[in-house]
Amino acid sequence: MHKSIKDLFPQTFVNVNGTISNAEEAKVSVFDRGFLYGDSIYEVTYTEDRNILFFDEHLDRLEHSAGMLDLTLYYSREQIIEETLKTLKTSNIPRAYIRIIITRGETAIGLDPTISDHNNLVIIVKPQAPYPTKFYDDGLYLTIASILRNDAKATNPAAKSGNYLNNVMAMAEARKIGADDAIMVNNEGYLTEGTTFNIWMVKNGKVSTPAARSGLLMGITRAKLLKLCHENSIGCQETLITPDQILQADEVFITSSTKGLVPVSRLDDRKFERSNAKISVTSHLSHLYNKYVKNYKLNQKYTY
Amino acid sequence: MHKSIKDLFPQTFVNVNGTISNAEEAKVSVFDRGFLYGDSIYEVTYTEDRNILFFDEHLDRLEHSAGMLDLTLYYSREQIIEETLKTLKTSNIPRAYIRIIITRGETAIGLDPTISDHNNLVIIVKPQAPYPTKFYDDGLYLTIASILRNDAKATNPAAKSGNYLNNVMAMAEARKIGADDAIMVNNEGYLTEGTTFNIWMVKNGKVSTPAARSGLLMGITRAKLLKLCHENSIGCQETLITPDQILQADEVFITSSTKGLVPVSRLDDRKFERSNAKISVTSHLSHLYNKYVKNYKLNQKYTY
Repeated sequence: MHKSIKDLFPQTFVNVNGTISNAEEAKVSVFDRGFLYGDSIYEVTYTEDRNILFFDEHLDRLEHSAGMLDLTLYYSREQIIEETLKTLKTSNIPRAYIRIIITRGETAIGLDPTISDHNNLVIIVKPQAPYPTKFYDDGLYLTIASILRNDAKATNPAAKSGNYLNNVMAMAEARKIGADDAIMVNNEGYLTEGTTFNIWMVKNGKVSTPAARSGLLMGITRAKLLKLCHENSIGCQETLITPDQILQADEVFITSSTKGLVPVSRLDDRKFERSNAKISVTSHLSHLYNKYVKNYKLNQKYTY
Repeated sequence: MHKSIKDLFPQTFVNVNGTISNAEEAKVSVFDRGFLYGDSIYEVTYTEDRNILFFDEHLDRLEHSAGMLDLTLYYSREQIIEETLKTLKTSNIPRAYIRIIITRGETAIGLDPTISDHNNLVIIVKPQAPYPTKFYDDGLYLTIASILRNDAKATNPAAKSGNYLNNVMAMAEARKIGADDAIMVNNEGYLTEGTTFNIWMVKNGKVSTPAARSGLLMGITRAKLLKLCHENSIGCQETLITPDQILQADEVFITSSTKGLVPVSRLDDRKFERSNAKISVTSHLSHLYNKYVKNYKLNQKYTY
């Protein structure tokens, strides 16, 4: 007998088009285009001390994804905010994971997106334990997957959609060799991003991350960190990066909305020393970012 | 008010993990990986006179897709056949559309597919009107989409998965210019396939279709037609085809499991004469294929 939804998702609240239920009861039609075609967009963020982190930025990106995919939003930004806060209030979870999914709804069978006349809005709220300390201390073991990242001219990774099989298969490669996760290159051989995070390298004190034209999602933590580098006069660039270059880096780390900055201790056969981690650039940036998040929380407007 | 599922899918029967309901009641969990990530495979075929067309071939391809995506099948082939026939019997529809979807089920949030311990099996059965005669008579208007087909080294089109946004966006391009549908090229500029069909051209009596290495789904009608060409000594090849080549063809047509052979009367600005359609190679192949289907039905084993 497989694990039940009840066991997988305790203390979880799901809002489906305004109706809140527990995890077990939260369902969508098999005719939902998100289910049939992955024809959906989504965002993930979390709350700390009953504050939603960078909600404006996530909503901006959700709208950007919708625009890229010609997905008409039948829910206004205000409605999405209201339903999210309603779900969080109902949950009463101080530190919650939030996933907001908007699909092109149900239509007659067929790919034509212009026949869509509504959305389905699904908001998942569940307790979010902080990412395990061991990963911040010991670092992640990543692999460069053999599967390529979707081409920006095909299924553009810059739109955060429900088509995540590319990333699922990259993660499958990582699991096969015992790695924690995977990063992917594009069809020109340049690094793009990880399965659910952006990738960074430090060489001779200079910070680099793959440029937008590599084909990747514009990470919200990525943008914050670029800004922090500039404000703190830390040399930093968005550029094209090859696997060889990252394998010869001094330090490697990732950024993610739910995890912040996490160091990488191993990338395939290359190991990155963590003995002097305290004085590393990664550690310095991590400190700056955590301070930024703390200050942000004092002023932020989405509380429940 | 948007169109209801009841109105969109009259006389429709859906089997979800063995339980048959009407369209309105057919639901999956919002935690299903098919809904969250498009982490699913599927097949579509139809029945004529209560016979399932080429069911063995579709089941072979379903298993092939599962293999390509490391998707463990917890339903045996026999169970899938049994549930499909059960749904068809319940529906009592002589000419039915059948969609079989298998997902990696519900898991904890996260891409790792190895944590999946079950499938969700969804079988949709609904009345299938024959594809409108006008398309067989007048031909389709297609466009070569600007969006590229997913790279075979990224999200391989050879696996029939729930990641169909690439095709949805190609179809969106078609609808914008009033075309019926779209075909796509790969990142090397070679033709691959249509949004839900294979593409063919005839030049000086010789039939060509994009080769597997172009990156496409191995169509079941495509395979049948290649076989029929060989058996009937009609020159035919699987090869690399450029947009220029197909625009200079004498005839163009498509193949699809649910539509069979359909002529193309227009591809972007190029129009293909339909005045001598009766003596065309397309017409000859169409005749051979329809005869083949008719004979197949006399001997086939999946009836209800």
